[in-house]
Amino acid sequence: MQEVDLIITGAKALLLDSQNTCLDHASVAINAGDIVAVDHTEKIEKQYRAKKTITAEDSLIMPGFVNCHTHAAMTCFRGIADDLELMDWLNNYIFPAEAKNVNKELAYWGSLLGAAEMIKSGTTTFCDMYIFEDETARAAKAAGIRCLIGEVLFDFPSPNFKTSAEGIAYTKMLIEKWKGDPLVNIIIEPHALYTCSKPLLKNVKKLAEDYHLPIGLHLLENAAEKKQLEEKFGKSAVSFLKDIGYLDEKLIAFHCVHFSQEDMKLFADNGCKVSHNPASNMKLASGVAPVPEMLEFGITVGLGTDGCASNNNLDMIKEMATAAKLHKVARLDPTVMDARTVVRMATIEGAKALGMGKITGSLEAGKKADIIIIGLNEPHMTPLYSEYSHLVYAMSGADVDTVLINGKIVMENRKLSTINEEEVMQKVREIAVKVKESLKK
Amino acid sequence: MQEVDLIITGAKALLLDSQNTCLDHASVAINAGDIVAVDHTEKIEKQYRAKKTITAEDSLIMPGFVNCHTHAAMTCFRGIADDLELMDWLNNYIFPAEAKNVNKELAYWGSLLGAAEMIKSGTTTFCDMYIFEDETARAAKAAGIRCLIGEVLFDFPSPNFKTSAEGIAYTKMLIEKWKGDPLVNIIIEPHALYTCSKPLLKNVKKLAEDYHLPIGLHLLENAAEKKQLEEKFGKSAVSFLKDIGYLDEKLIAFHCVHFSQEDMKLFADNGCKVSHNPASNMKLASGVAPVPEMLEFGITVGLGTDGCASNNNLDMIKEMATAAKLHKVARLDPTVMDARTVVRMATIEGAKALGMGKITGSLEAGKKADIIIIGLNEPHMTPLYSEYSHLVYAMSGADVDTVLINGKIVMENRKLSTINEEEVMQKVREIAVKVKESLKK
Repeated sequence: MQEVDLIITGAKALLLDSQNTCLDHASVAINAGDIVAVDHTEKIEKQYRAKKTITAEDSLIMPGFVNCHTHAAMTCFRGIADDLELMDWLNNYIFPAEAKNVNKELAYWGSLLGAAEMIKSGTTTFCDMYIFEDETARAAKAAGIRCLIGEVLFDFPSPNFKTSAEGIAYTKMLIEKWKGDPLVNIIIEPHALYTCSKPLLKNVKKLAEDYHLPIGLHLLENAAEKKQLEEKFGKSAVSFLKDIGYLDEKLIAFHCVHFSQEDMKLFADNGCKVSHNPASNMKLASGVAPVPEMLEFGITVGLGTDGCASNNNLDMIKEMATAAKLHKVARLDPTVMDARTVVRMATIEGAKALGMGKITGSLEAGKKADIIIIGLNEPHMTPLYSEYSHLVYAMSGADVDTVLINGKIVMENRKLSTINEEEVMQKVREIAVKVKESLKK
Repeated sequence: MQEVDLIITGAKALLLDSQNTCLDHASVAINAGDIVAVDHTEKIEKQYRAKKTITAEDSLIMPGFVNCHTHAAMTCFRGIADDLELMDWLNNYIFPAEAKNVNKELAYWGSLLGAAEMIKSGTTTFCDMYIFEDETARAAKAAGIRCLIGEVLFDFPSPNFKTSAEGIAYTKMLIEKWKGDPLVNIIIEPHALYTCSKPLLKNVKKLAEDYHLPIGLHLLENAAEKKQLEEKFGKSAVSFLKDIGYLDEKLIAFHCVHFSQEDMKLFADNGCKVSHNPASNMKLASGVAPVPEMLEFGITVGLGTDGCASNNNLDMIKEMATAAKLHKVARLDPTVMDARTVVRMATIEGAKALGMGKITGSLEAGKKADIIIIGLNEPHMTPLYSEYSHLVYAMSGADVDTVLINGKIVMENRKLSTINEEEVMQKVREIAVKVKESLKK
């Protein structure tokens, strides 16, 4: 008998491995942050004894969700302006609210609130782009949530830097500071092709190569951007990315709503990844990304919520429902984006998209123990014919009972163990008062 | 000081009256099932004393949701088959599952499970169409939820009747049996124009006129139906309805996805109502109903979830999110279906669509006390700039804490007082075992 730190036992388990294994009466043995074994309970009981056991009756055990694109600190702007024309929304609400209010305090508390919301809806890894990302990293570390964070880079001043050179230097600082951290990982994030000059994009690429880090950027989110970039480059945005050496396995592009067949072929041929963010694309009326076609091309596509200014939540279960239904009606084909495909996008495919497929996204021995337990004993999940169907079409984030990240229990029976919820909500409410005041001036 | 049964006090209140009043520190005085007064807490405290007080700190008080179209008993088929071609789904799963399994027992327990789910997500009134509707009425009565129920009528046998004449007779029985009931109301429901003959439709109309009852039917849910009906009638389906005298204020049509400008004009001119069911329309790839245009025409449009075979949940908060976002992306216009419009569709406009606008759908003195209390002290609802925005874009059904229907507390702090949840879930699980077996044969 091998002693391990923890065994989760007694429930159904969706492994999200390459065979999409679904086990009844499954147990997971966890030691030193890693999944040691996943198997039928009787087999685990013969091989392992645990210091602590979580008995998950009437529950589903599965990997935590991977949110491929968000701006966590923007929880502070949740619901400040909705249902507006894009330019009205940006120029009269979001940009002034950011210019007047974004500082280290907002970045820390907004990110911590985002982490609380993400954990409470089953997310165990998120990829973030914003300002003062060291604060987001500190908040994620405090919350015990896995992350891939990148300071947003562009050629105009941000609340955190006057020049893009300072932004690059800040990113280098992040890389050095968080090197070897078990939870915090760094991504280099130029904002978009319409906000970054070619020299900045080249500096970004060199930095990413020097440190073997991924690059993430917004790409072709709406039709106006596509038109503008084609006029600027005299070719498609994706062809331009090819010219500057960006198309490789380390690239993840956010949105990709206005992707052509040629764009998809280039992405597929070069192993580039996509984060699909359907709720944001719908709410901002950006369009419908050709995700079923991307999957046919063999592109790795993960799911993301985008930030709380444009969603306005960080719930990956809601995002799955949106992704599954949107493409059916957009193509008038009820067979596309079936539930299992969408659950994979929200877990293992998202992990692969972020270059983290070897450490998270599925329940397999050797991976980090990023695990959620979902209670099934609720009217809205009764009866149970298919776990995948319920995950996508019937559940909500509030059904997640318990969350482990890196083997640590960060929420048990809906109670967060790493975050003082009342404190973080109070801090953000105080920030929101200032945000609201600032928009009146 | 006037003594009343109950005062709910201390919270923000959205009244959903004609002025869209939003009160801070509001209280609601309730007596004998009715709302006696809604006002600022200090005014209510001066005028009323209560036998019982509910203190709703950090909460939102609002009218319960009105689900304009569902098939509650179909909770028994939740998730049995998804992501399939329409005819494959119907012919190989839904129709055989129904033919082999629908009986009084399934109708009762499935409806009671549906009522539990609806109450737990804030619905206080639902309009139902299915088989053995007396069982649905009994379940609704047991659950204490307001309903408008109609036995589905068509020209072929159902598990409940051999001929449409028997279906009409059953409907008459329902009308007599439930006459004067405070919760159960009757609607006459021919299934659709492609399943009902002209003689049956005429008999239905006469029955509705005899008893002054509304008529509800599925209409133009998908493109194939539109084509088929135009070929059958030699004119549009709505023109045919006009010819047979159906276009009046007592008609509510479910879906109306493939509505033309002319159809909308006829509906508007004649005061006909529409139930919009966007999640079902997306999942079944039926299309996008022209709801913003319907609203421009002045048609009263409510929201519905449809049944659990095609949604697969009864959560009106999810339905609001879907409605708000779908039309933005379908029209590439982020300003349509703003949050307040959608909240009205889910409450007062839905009540009007069902002909129940004088008794429910808003918090106004003289209306029945159909009220929900939503806790706001959660990370995903922090900060709070706009209640309407949070309702549509950030909340979920699980945020509903307390529900009153007809003045009675049917759920308090997430605990149902009228339904034994464990019992109803167990009964439906037993039914589901039989359903699953029946599909193997």
